[in-house]
Formats: sequence, C-alpha cells, structure tokens
Amino acid sequence: MVSDAARSDLGALFGDRLSLSAAVREAHGQSESLVTAGLPDAVVFPRTTDEVARLAVLAGRHRVPLIGWGAGTSLEGHALAVAGGVVVDFRDMAAVLELRAEDRLVRVQPGLTREALNTELRATGLMFPVDPGANASLGGMAATRASGTTAVRYGTMRDNVRGLEVVLADGRVIRTGTAAPKSSAGYDLTALFVGSEGTLGLITELTLRLHGQPEAVMAAVAAFPTLAGAVDCVIATIQMGIPMARIEFLDEATVAACNAYSGGSLPLAPQLLLEFHGHPVGVAEDVRRFQEVAALFGAEGFQWADRQEDRNRLWKLRHEAYRAILATRPGRRAIVTDVCVPISALAVAVAETRADIAASGIPGPILGHVGDGNFHAILLVDPGSAAEVATAGALAGRMAERALRLGGTITGEHGVGFGKRPYMAAEHGAAWHVMGEIKRALDPMGVMNPGKVLP
Amino acid sequence: MVSDAARSDLGALFGDRLSLSAAVREAHGQSESLVTAGLPDAVVFPRTTDEVARLAVLAGRHRVPLIGWGAGTSLEGHALAVAGGVVVDFRDMAAVLELRAEDRLVRVQPGLTREALNTELRATGLMFPVDPGANASLGGMAATRASGTTAVRYGTMRDNVRGLEVVLADGRVIRTGTAAPKSSAGYDLTALFVGSEGTLGLITELTLRLHGQPEAVMAAVAAFPTLAGAVDCVIATIQMGIPMARIEFLDEATVAACNAYSGGSLPLAPQLLLEFHGHPVGVAEDVRRFQEVAALFGAEGFQWADRQEDRNRLWKLRHEAYRAILATRPGRRAIVTDVCVPISALAVAVAETRADIAASGIPGPILGHVGDGNFHAILLVDPGSAAEVATAGALAGRMAERALRLGGTITGEHGVGFGKRPYMAAEHGAAWHVMGEIKRALDPMGVMNPGKVLP
Repeated sequence: MVSDAARSDLGALFGDRLSLSAAVREAHGQSESLVTAGLPDAVVFPRTTDEVARLAVLAGRHRVPLIGWGAGTSLEGHALAVAGGVVVDFRDMAAVLELRAEDRLVRVQPGLTREALNTELRATGLMFPVDPGANASLGGMAATRASGTTAVRYGTMRDNVRGLEVVLADGRVIRTGTAAPKSSAGYDLTALFVGSEGTLGLITELTLRLHGQPEAVMAAVAAFPTLAGAVDCVIATIQMGIPMARIEFLDEATVAACNAYSGGSLPLAPQLLLEFHGHPVGVAEDVRRFQEVAALFGAEGFQWADRQEDRNRLWKLRHEAYRAILATRPGRRAIVTDVCVPISALAVAVAETRADIAASGIPGPILGHVGDGNFHAILLVDPGSAAEVATAGALAGRMAERALRLGGTITGEHGVGFGKRPYMAAEHGAAWHVMGEIKRALDPMGVMNPGKVLP
Repeated sequence: MVSDAARSDLGALFGDRLSLSAAVREAHGQSESLVTAGLPDAVVFPRTTDEVARLAVLAGRHRVPLIGWGAGTSLEGHALAVAGGVVVDFRDMAAVLELRAEDRLVRVQPGLTREALNTELRATGLMFPVDPGANASLGGMAATRASGTTAVRYGTMRDNVRGLEVVLADGRVIRTGTAAPKSSAGYDLTALFVGSEGTLGLITELTLRLHGQPEAVMAAVAAFPTLAGAVDCVIATIQMGIPMARIEFLDEATVAACNAYSGGSLPLAPQLLLEFHGHPVGVAEDVRRFQEVAALFGAEGFQWADRQEDRNRLWKLRHEAYRAILATRPGRRAIVTDVCVPISALAVAVAETRADIAASGIPGPILGHVGDGNFHAILLVDPGSAAEVATAGALAGRMAERALRLGGTITGEHGVGFGKRPYMAAEHGAAWHVMGEIKRALDPMGVMNPGKVLP
C-alpha cells in the first residue's frame, strides 16, 4: 500500500497525471494472459526522463514499487503489480527523438510502438524489423528481449538495441552504448538492461538499429504431409544456410482456426509460411534452393506472394493466429507457452509436445518461429475449471522441462515475469543467484518491479 | 607480493604446473604494446575447471590477484599483473570439447586459438569467422569482445558467443546461455562476461556460434585517388546494404609498408580490400553492385581474387600490415590506436586524424575495419624518446576524444585494459560507476584482474 505521504509526493510531481481511480488501476492490472495479480495503488504518466528520475527518488524514499508499462501486451505478468506500488505508463513518452538515416539508427522514447515507428520510417527506405506479433511498445520489447517472426534473419532485441537511457533505482540517469557499430569499452550494460524486465531500472530512451527495406521480397506458404516433414524441412533449410527472413510453422489445428477466422483457404495440413528478402537475383536463387529442399520433405501446394497486398494477407493470417485459435472455443482463455530448443532437437521437441497435448484432452494448437527453434502451444482452458487450468499448467511445465532436457530454454521470447519464475533455477542453477546479486547491487531496496525474474 | 602461505597452497594445487621462475614470469609480463607493468609473482597452468575454481578460493583466502592469460596478444595491457599476483595461463585448456555441427555450435576451452579451431573445422563445412588478425585465444577474444576484419558481416564476439562457463571470484562455477538460438530467460550474463576482461571471473569454457563456409568467395583490392574517396565509398556501400564480408582500408603509407614487407605491388594509393561471401549468383550480383558504387568514387585498378591462394595472399598482406609498418622503422615501437565512430562520421574522423598525425611529425599509417567505422593508427615511436612517446600519447588521446565527440567509442575492438582506462569516464559518465558496482557485487575483494577497466 502506498502511504498518504507517498501519495501526496506523487501528486506534487505528477498533478493530474497521477491516477488513483479504480478504472485506471484495473486497466493496468490485467494482461493478455491468464496470469493475474493485485492492482497497482496508482498509475502515473511521466512526460520526461527527469520526471522518471524524480519518481525513482520518491519511490526509494517511500519504499514504493515501480512497474514500467508499455502497451500491456506481455504474456507472463511482467507489468503486473504483484506487491502493489506505482505503474509507470509511458503512453506520453512515445516520440521519435532523432532519425540518423545514414547510420541506420533511430532514437525513440519507450512508449512508441513498433508499428508507429515503422509508419514513421515508411518513406525513408529503412525499417525496424523485430516483430513479436502484438503492436508492443519498444521499451517493453527491449525489457523482455522480444523477438518474433523475423528474428531468424534480423535478430532479437538483443541484436537491435544499440543503446539505452535508463533511470536507476536511486534516480541516477545513465546512458549505455554509443552510435558506433561496435565497442569494446567495458561491460555491455545495454545487453544487461535488455531482458531485465524493469527489475534494474526504467528504460526512458532507446537507440535502435534500423535495416534497409529489402529491394525484393517473396513470401510463400507450403503444405507438408506431416508435422515431422515440415519441421525437418526447417532444420535442413537453416543448416544449409539459406538466408530466410521468416520461416514460421502452423500445425493443422492452427491452420483450421486461421481459415475459419480470416476466411483463408489453406489446405488442412502442417504449413510453413516463408519470406525471402534481398536483391531480386539473390531472392530468386534462395527461392529456387528452398524449393529443392522442401521437395525432399514432400512440400506441395506452394502459394507464392510477391505483391505487397498478398504478402500482407498472408502475414495478417499469421498474426491473427492467436485470436483465431481463441475464437475456436468462445469463453475459453489461452495459456501461451514459449519454449526454444536447439535446431537439432526441434523435431523431437514438437513431436513430444504434440503427443503430450493430445493425451491431455486440452486443445492446444502449435505454431512458432521454428527457424529459431522457438515454438508455442496455445492451450485453451475454461478459466472456471480448476482442473483444466491445472492440466494446462502441468503441460506447460513439462514443455519447459523438455526444452531444458534438450539443451534449450524455458522462454524463447516472452520473458520470465512471474509466470516463468518457477523454472529459472532449473535453467540457470547458480547463475540465477548471480542475477540476484546484480539486482541487489543496483536496486538494494528492491523497488524496481519486485517479484519478477529473480530468486 | 604472494605470501609464503599462498605460495605453498599454490604448490599443493598445481605441483610443477606452478612456475615462480623469472623467465616464465617475464614471458607473462609483457605484451605486444608499449603498455608495461610489473611482473606477476607466479604463473599457473590449470588443466580443469575444478582446478580454476579451487584456485579462486585460494586467491580469495590469500587476497592474491588472478589474471587470465591466453595467447598474450592483447594491446592494452589486459593480461599484465599491475598489482602482482598469479597469471592463469590457459595453455593446457585448449581442447575442442564438443562439435554440434547440426546446431552450428562448438564447445571449446579458453586456451584454444581461433586458427586451431578453424583447422579442426576445415572438413566440416563450418567456420568460426571472428578474425582479429592475431592468432588469439578464444577465451581472450571473448574477454576483450574482439572482432576484426569479418565483423561487418558476422558480428563480433558479442554476437558469436552463445554461452560460457565461468569461475567466479568465490570459486562458484556458473554456466550462462543455452544451446537454443535465443532466450528471454533473465539477465544476459553471457553478454556481461563477454568484454569484462577477466574482472568478473575466469572463462573456463565457451560455446561458440559457427557459420557455414561460404559456397562462393570473391576478394578484391581497389585503389582510390583520395583517402576521402575510399572512405566515402565504404559509407555508400554500407548504406546501400551490400552484404560485404570484409571491407578494409589501407592508407598510402600502409600500402607502401605492405609492398615492401610482403613483396606486393599494389599501386601507391589508398586501397580498399574487399571480400564477398554467398552463393555464386548472389556474390556475382553483389560484386556488380559494388563496382557501380566504387566507380562513383573513382575506384580503379581492381584486382580480383577468386582462387583460394590469391585470396590468402591478399589477406596475408593485410594481416601482416602491423609487422610491415613496424619494419619501416627498425628499433621503433608501435602505439596502436583503436577508435570506432558512426559510419556517417567516418570520413571526417579519418581526415582529422590524418591531419593531426601529419602535424605531429610521428609516422602513423592508418588502416582499419572501416565497414564498422573502426580504424587504427600505428604510431611509431622511439621507445627511448620520452618526447616522442608523449607526442604519440597525446595523439592517441585526441583520437579517443574525437571519437567521443563524433558519437563513437574509445575502443572498437582492443578493449580497455589499463591503457584506455583514463578515457572511460568520458565515454560512460555515471554508467562507468554502475560497472564498478557490478564488479564489487561479484568480486568484493577485488581479486579478479585488478586495476583494469573499472573506476
């Protein structure tokens, strides 16, 4: 609970940009997932880094938790106030501060969404490729080390954040990184804050790498006779070094849901959705090579899309898969799993997961960014049925354990929040405690997003 | 000084793999640069992680500094014992532990050199591309976040270390990273240890990303009428997104030195050395596009090399440039600078540096990995002349300041050691102290490579 004194200080700092209303607190007390927690005591809407810095000092003085908030699209409860406190909504810090086209860099505020950034970039020939599906805020994407469909080509937020401005727990404002393409000047603090989920500080500015909009783009969808065939085709493609821009897997159940929801007519079979980027000559050769590989695994019914509107239709179908799957069982909620394994273990990981879900009786279509070894099962449960929720939770737990047994990770891109925290010890062992030691060094009072990620 | 008790404990742990001899200590008390320090008190040659862990416990008990040692090729005094202590030479931990060809990963010990690794990989179709020139150890390359000629295409050690085993100051052994291509599971400890120069722990194992040996390789050298033309050509090439595998700059003085040393016959003009990797069709198109760009900047006298032996000759010339420059002035020593700037600032950075060196009267050929905005001046001084050493030091200082003023970094790839430490505050401001806080959290007694990197 926030004390009267703290509330008074917050009011003095934020005026009518401090909200204590139930409606605003409730809007900041839920997420897209089944993960729930209590409500925050207050929500503030800062406009400047200096306000965030003064907020941190105030929070330290009153021992009030601070929880960053972007677009509210995270899936593991990252932005929920598990111990009360103040949600810091970056809605009003959403500007493009500086575009350096010649260096392929852009400096932005954390509340800007990736779609808004790409809209601003449209005429420049540049793009920000990281695409987690949801129109997430860039600050949130950095905080969770997000990735998505294009990571197989352009990398994750780890690879695309060049520098940060961060407000620390004691109110200090630091800058990490430079505008140079690389540096060996000391600890890589940028990489430390990317993926720290707001537990080490609040990101108030990001310098992001941009990429050229590809001269030629070809997208395609291909059906495979079996799940194993589709997955083995992905493995062979990656191992051959064909530079895929996207290579996404949808299982039969996902395809059926997408057809119903988006009016598509894809054959009811495991599908790969593909995209190739490059110059026209290179793309044509990549496509030719991919078709040779895919034929070995029984691919058929290729549908090619080189026109922008056809590609948009294809990726809209992919991006709506989550809602399409939810729509197959009205009233149910989704538990979205997120494991990532070495490519060599992908086929066995998907097959074992498929069998485990089938045996459970819970609907659970599988899809994912399989070029990275990353896939999701969307487990649909009746939120009123404790038994179903428990069964789905056990399935998700076995997926995490299976990923670790195969040399992978409990989360490829969604992050830890508090949903994945129970598996952190199994993944990291003693290294998890090292994370805790770093946390205590930078936030000794534990005001930065408490209850997440750490031991 | 190491106490008798500490020496006795070291002897019990390492037997005849503890060396106290003057010759061995002196061999571990020098580096390739002018940077010097005292000798270590002892040198040990561990064979296992467990021995390193027990060494750390022992060092903590006796408050003895531990300094990791790979191939001894670093340039900023990283591995010198500025406060005495024990050098940990990883000569006997140089094995390839596991090759996972299908996942393009290899697990190695820190003493393995990059050339030895690539020799082992030769028949696999895979390669480890990071190439700093020197045949450095992979542990040392990770510790300094090394890069080199191929970083423009394949990234630096930041991008190519997937995971680590590290012995911490208190003897704990942790593992970071997984075999999956990406993860969002908590703090990126791998990235924190890469570039930490042995100040947070000793790297005892590395999991490295491998890349496919390119199907087609084309190398070339092109002469330009002016330094500005060559640099502007690099800028345009990078901005156009032509996927260069290497793009290296040699100024006229470097070309003259290389011709004399390696028996080459390159025209005496600023040169770009280039390499293209890909499939034959893509490389042909990339080459065509590069030639179009280069023609705009007056490139002439292209010499193409698609045969392995011709390419080897070309890159041997580049790799021997440092020795070639030293050979132009027998008896002189080199102060090797290493700045990195945003691509947009590259032309002005090189031109201002060129003019500054010319005015100083000190010979200082310029060369570098200009595709990354990273370049070096090799300042040749008479080590007996305090005035020359001071002039060169001032030149190096102005290069660092210039890089910062242009938005760059004081070190693109050589690291901080103690040579670059005086500029850390200017680059990082308050963030430098955050590095110090992390250091104290993980190494409260300061036994891990003291006197380097940190405040």
